[in-house]
Order: sequence, then structure tokens, then C-alpha cells
Amino acid sequence: MPRQLHLIGFLGTGPTVHHYGTWRHPATDNRFLESAFWERIALTLEDAKFDAVFFADAQVLYSDEVMSRGGLLYLLDPVPLAANVLRATRHLGVGVTVSTTFYEAYALARTLGTVDFLSGGRLAWNVVTSVYDEEARRFSMAKMPDRDMRYDRAREVLEACFELWDSFSPDAFIVDQGSGRFMDPAKLKTFEYVGDHVRTRGPLNVPASPQGRPVIMQAGGSEKGRDFAARFGEVIFTMANSVEGMRSFYADMKRRAAAAGRDPDDCKIFPLIQVSVAETESIARERLEYVNELIDDDAAIAWTSLATGADLRSMSPDEPLANLRVGPEGSTGSLNLLLSTRNGDNSTLTVREAARLFSSTTALTVAGTPEQVADQMQEIFETGGADGFILAAPVMPGSFEDFARLVVPVLQQRGLFRTEYPGTTLRETLG
Amino acid sequence: MPRQLHLIGFLGTGPTVHHYGTWRHPATDNRFLESAFWERIALTLEDAKFDAVFFADAQVLYSDEVMSRGGLLYLLDPVPLAANVLRATRHLGVGVTVSTTFYEAYALARTLGTVDFLSGGRLAWNVVTSVYDEEARRFSMAKMPDRDMRYDRAREVLEACFELWDSFSPDAFIVDQGSGRFMDPAKLKTFEYVGDHVRTRGPLNVPASPQGRPVIMQAGGSEKGRDFAARFGEVIFTMANSVEGMRSFYADMKRRAAAAGRDPDDCKIFPLIQVSVAETESIARERLEYVNELIDDDAAIAWTSLATGADLRSMSPDEPLANLRVGPEGSTGSLNLLLSTRNGDNSTLTVREAARLFSSTTALTVAGTPEQVADQMQEIFETGGADGFILAAPVMPGSFEDFARLVVPVLQQRGLFRTEYPGTTLRETLG
Repeated sequence: MPRQLHLIGFLGTGPTVHHYGTWRHPATDNRFLESAFWERIALTLEDAKFDAVFFADAQVLYSDEVMSRGGLLYLLDPVPLAANVLRATRHLGVGVTVSTTFYEAYALARTLGTVDFLSGGRLAWNVVTSVYDEEARRFSMAKMPDRDMRYDRAREVLEACFELWDSFSPDAFIVDQGSGRFMDPAKLKTFEYVGDHVRTRGPLNVPASPQGRPVIMQAGGSEKGRDFAARFGEVIFTMANSVEGMRSFYADMKRRAAAAGRDPDDCKIFPLIQVSVAETESIARERLEYVNELIDDDAAIAWTSLATGADLRSMSPDEPLANLRVGPEGSTGSLNLLLSTRNGDNSTLTVREAARLFSSTTALTVAGTPEQVADQMQEIFETGGADGFILAAPVMPGSFEDFARLVVPVLQQRGLFRTEYPGTTLRETLG
Repeated sequence: MPRQLHLIGFLGTGPTVHHYGTWRHPATDNRFLESAFWERIALTLEDAKFDAVFFADAQVLYSDEVMSRGGLLYLLDPVPLAANVLRATRHLGVGVTVSTTFYEAYALARTLGTVDFLSGGRLAWNVVTSVYDEEARRFSMAKMPDRDMRYDRAREVLEACFELWDSFSPDAFIVDQGSGRFMDPAKLKTFEYVGDHVRTRGPLNVPASPQGRPVIMQAGGSEKGRDFAARFGEVIFTMANSVEGMRSFYADMKRRAAAAGRDPDDCKIFPLIQVSVAETESIARERLEYVNELIDDDAAIAWTSLATGADLRSMSPDEPLANLRVGPEGSTGSLNLLLSTRNGDNSTLTVREAARLFSSTTALTVAGTPEQVADQMQEIFETGGADGFILAAPVMPGSFEDFARLVVPVLQQRGLFRTEYPGTTLRETLG
């Protein structure tokens, strides 16, 4: 079978996950606090044969400016919501973001193992390390540990979880009412994991799911993050926002995966794209401009500062971005994006312009007809830029519906995308 | 309206939660690893207008003997399962057991707050402190902290969670697309909680549910446990297994609740009962004897040892219970039950007899016609023994179905039980 691309829908448990104009669009449905809202989106994307949907997350509310006008919030724990979405669907995978910084490995293995098991093997875990001191202060820490320690802990948490998920094979069940033999404890694996940050032991009291363990998602911007993703990630996503940036990331990650002793093909690269698709290119472009106009300047500047660690609030909105100074917090990947949103040097933009771009189009943004969108995706896919795409929706959930109805059939006609699910687990869907 | 009693179904994420013969009964459905199995039971009990179902839990598998023949296991994290059960129902409450010993308060507030919110306010949290060193060793501890420290931590966790659940009123949402005002951050409460074991700060990034916060369930056997339950518990359950024991517990808890400055009526007492009901008393009794016979001696002795801290395995099964010595682990309540399973002195029983009793009938066990069962419940309810009952099912889920079809209508005819739910939240249902 020819190589086919993969598709994941980007969600978050609030009104805004990527584009700050989303919540203000008149066609956006803001029932983001209802389980049924997310289940409907999942069913739409399952009908279109998407691989998965994915919930971003953060442990805290963002600053007042970001909240009051931006609508960028993660308002619910994505894990129980994922359980509901998985219960409502039969084939679609669901990715959840859960930090390795604040939880014990055994607790993570148990909760995520349960959701994976109950879904018949359709969970993905987006493994992150938390970055903000405001998050640390909620979890009995004075401030966030440094990046090296966060990644060391993340590695230990994953290693321990993998052993826990490997410790209880469903083969152990006998359940013979006549003989009274319920299970064979000899089939469970007893072990001890002793790391610098994590100590636990098995077996876990959750049986392994049909896919063995959740699919591991990862996005790493820093050197440390990329190495971590290359070692553990099966779905690796990136916000590289130019085709050249995607190819460079793709080549780098495949090389790192091979260096880590893995088959690079087991490490699928998913750049984020944002699509505005319509019956004509001019409609698609005008719709994108319309939602871009809805972004609030103050919210955009506040959010950009928070996400990148670059304090734009202390600068004049009309000052050139070239003047900015970078603080200690924030993510390396985000900062690089701010400085190169338009595939190159952003220093000639003003603070306001850069922040508006960062709050709307950090993803590669494609506006056009179904064929134009498919052309762009095909080119990236066939020229070493992607194994699949994570799709962000500027209008919720309309952008997903438009993509499913207009772009997916074109990709399918070209043989670039599945028309049926190949099996029952997410790992099978990902090939 | 005359005072009415309350009913909660006792579940656990495995084949056995209370009676060791359950899984071996030919009419028991052992699909305990499927979400749909639990949802069907919940729908049966919702149809019968039960207040709630409740999932017991433990963090580890029990010993090999207990597992291999007893089927006493908690095999899934009850929280995501509760999310599914709540999604499948509209009025029924769901209680989940979550330990305060191993999790950060913020994580608990976020996860349980999300499940409560998504369900429209139908979650109860059975607040426990973990007791076994085997559990501690899975969570980076060498052994379990002592009882005083466990309860001190539990108190701080609850205090912090209450503040977190009080910090984000849904009133804060404006969501006005026209003006671009998404929310009013001034309506969120910022606070810091600094205890000896717990440090966190608010606001929480989950809005409060329609019932404000989850209903607090508690079962405490020790002095410390009873005081804790009297201070925080709204649903307090007990395994007192004689009517006299129920009355004594009831009076004691109501007194303690008043002493803690609460309205004793806000503190509802639920003894555990196990019912075998049929069209005649002789059928009901014979059915109970049948399932009691299915208990395995070795599993019963191993489980009784583990639960009570009394090492029965080192004794001969035919030795008198009077010879036992008590170890440092285990729960005070369970040990008292072992010593008085038949409403008095158990020391004349053999180890085997006592263990079989402990593995089948620690709850008050009633076998009879619908009228006989209702009579017994009514007497306990009207003579200061209970505000409601937690119902254990010796056959799963048949015992629940029998109770719903045979006993509930009798209770309703007598005006002792509701025929409609009074509102939408669990706290409203509990009155």
C-alpha cells in the first residue's frame, strides 16, 4: 500500500486553543464546558477517519489579560473528558496532555492505563514537562525545577510507566467459576523501579490494554526536548510554521530517532496546520481575515509574553520586536516561533503585529479551495516535511466540519488518506 | 414530607467487592472490565431511584492467595469509569474512592471538580487514607505514614480542595462575542493554602459544579476516623453488622457532628446491608447459603488477615479465633468486625469459620421476602440506626435487580422511599 498521511484534530478544554479570534467568531459554538460538545466534534472527525483528536492542557488559568479578552483557558481536566469522548466513539484515538512534573508514576500509569483499557486501546498520552512557576506553586513547590531536572524526571516517569504497563497481561485471568481459579498470579511481573525522582513497584493493578500501552505523543522545541521526543515519541508534533522549517524538523527528528536506536518510521512527525477552506480561494481568504480581525491586542500581547517568556507588556505596542529581551520562563520552541513567524526574520514587525501573528498563525496557515489545501498538504507530505498533520480550527467546530467535508474526500481520491480504519487500536491506525 | 431513607449501591472495579463467593456464582456476570457493564448496573439503580452508586478502591493488587481464588481485586481507576457512568445517567450520583495520601490537593480538586462539573453536580468523593505499606512503596515512600499524620494530611487536602472548589464561580463567564469580553477575572478568588503537608494556591482552573463541590463520603472506624467523618462527611457509611451496632454508631456520629458545629442532619449515616430477597423466605435463605458455600477457605483466610492486620495464615484453620494476635497494619473497623461478626463475641469460632464469615457477611445480612426485608430496613431506619443503606450484592448484578424489583416498590408503597428525583444534583437528592 502506498504511504498515507495521518490526521489529528487539535482541541483544548476551553474556547481558544490556538487562534485568539476563535471564541468571538459568530459561528463558533462556545459550549466548551459540555461533554456532548466534544463528543460531537470527535464523532465528526471519526466519520472523516481521522486518527485521533488531541486535548492540550495547562494546570493553571493564565493571566487576567489573557483570560478576560482572549478566552485562552484550559477549563477542565482532559482525562475524564477523554474517557467520555472515547466512550462515545469506536475507532478514533484521543490524546491527552498530562504533565510528568507533578504526579507519581504509579498514579499516571493507573489512570491512563484505565482509560486506555476501557477504550479498547485508543489513548495517546502527550507527555509534557510543566514550565510555569505558577503551576509549581499549586503543587507544593516553591518554583519550577530547571529544565534538565524536569526532563530527567519525565524520563524516569515514562520508564516506570512502561514497566507498569508491561506488568499485568490479561492472560493472567482464568475466571473459571467451576474450579474456583480466578487468576494466575505467576503471570504478573513483580519489579521495583528506583530512580532519582521516581520510586515505584509493580505489578500495576490495571490490565494492559489491547495496544499494550498508550501511544506516546511529544512536542519538543529545545535540544533536550527533541532528544526526549526521539527516544519515546510515536506521534511528534511541532509548530514549525514554514514548509522549510517542517522539512528541517522532520529530518532532524528522524535522524535523532535513528540515533536513539529506533526505526524512524515508528516516530511520526505531525506539524500543526490551520486551514481555511471554502468553495473559492477568495472566500477562504476572506474568512481567515475575518477571524484574524477578532483578536484583541492586549490579550495577544499578554499571551505572547507568557508563552515565550519575552515580556512584551513592558514595551510599546508600536516598538519594533527587535528590542525585546527574553526572560527565564517559557518554552524555547515558542520563542523561536515568535521570532520567525513569517518564515524568517520578524524583527521588522512591531510588538503588536508580532503578537497578533503569534496569537493566530503560529501554525502553517493555508487558505484556499479543497484542491489547493490538498496540494499544499501533499507537497509537504511527499517532500520530507510530515507524516501527518495536526489540524487547528480557527472556527469551532466549523473549521473541522469544512475540512472533513471538503478536504478529506480530495485526499482520499488521491490515495493519500484512508477510507476505513485498519483495526481497532490507535497504534494500528497510526501504522 | 415525612423522612425518607436513602439508597446507595456498593460497587468496586473488580468481580468481588464484599462477598467472596460472588464471582463464582453461575448467575454472576463477570464482565467487570467493561464500562458498559457498570453503566447497565447504574441505569438499573437509577430506574429504581437510588441516590447513588459507589466504587470502592485500592491502589494495589492484594496477595496471591486473595487474587488467585478470591477474585477480590480493584482492577481499574474508578475516576474515569465514574465519568463514563455519570455520562450514561442523568440523576444518579456516583461515589469514587480516592486516597488523600498520595496526591496533591490541586490535582484532586481539578480531576474530581471536572467529573463533578461535567456530570452537572452528581459526584461524591469517598475520602480515604491509604493503609498498606505496599501502597506506599508504589508512591515513592518507604512505608505508610502513621495514622495521625495520614489524617492530618487528609484534613489539609480537604481544606485546600474546599477552597479551590470555592474559587471559580461560573458567574465569572461573560462570553460576549460582540464586546470581546470573555470573562471577569475579578470574580475569581485568589488565595494561598499553606499547611504542614499541603501547599497550593487558587483559583482552580475548573469552574464550580451546580452542587458547588462533590459530596463528601467517609467511613471511619478509629476515633480519629470518626472525628474526621463527623467534621467533613455528608454520607457516612459503616459496616456495623448488628442493629444494636448501627444504633450505637448512629448516635455516636450524630453527637460528634453536633460537637463539630454541624447540623447532624447534614451528616447522613449509611450502614452496609446485604440482601437476598425472593418470593419466599426459604428461597431467599437457600440462595444466600448457596453463594456462601462458594467461598474458598484459603482466599478467605488470606483476605481476612490482610484486611484486619491479624495474621490468621500462621494459625491452624481449626484453631479458635481467641488465639489471634494483632499486627500493626490494617483498619481498626475491620478488626472490630472480625471479632464481633455475629453481634457479639466471635472467639468461640474457629479461624476458618471466622474468616468465611468475614468474607461474606460483615454487612448486616437480610434474607427474606420483600416485606421481610422492608420491615427490617424500616425498623433500623425508624429506631435510630440509619438514614439510608449502602447495598452490597452477593450476586452481580442480579442481587441489585432483585432488590430494585422486589424491595423498592414496597418501600415506596410505605412512603419510605422516593418515586421521583427531587432535583438534578446529588446533594439535592440527599436532601
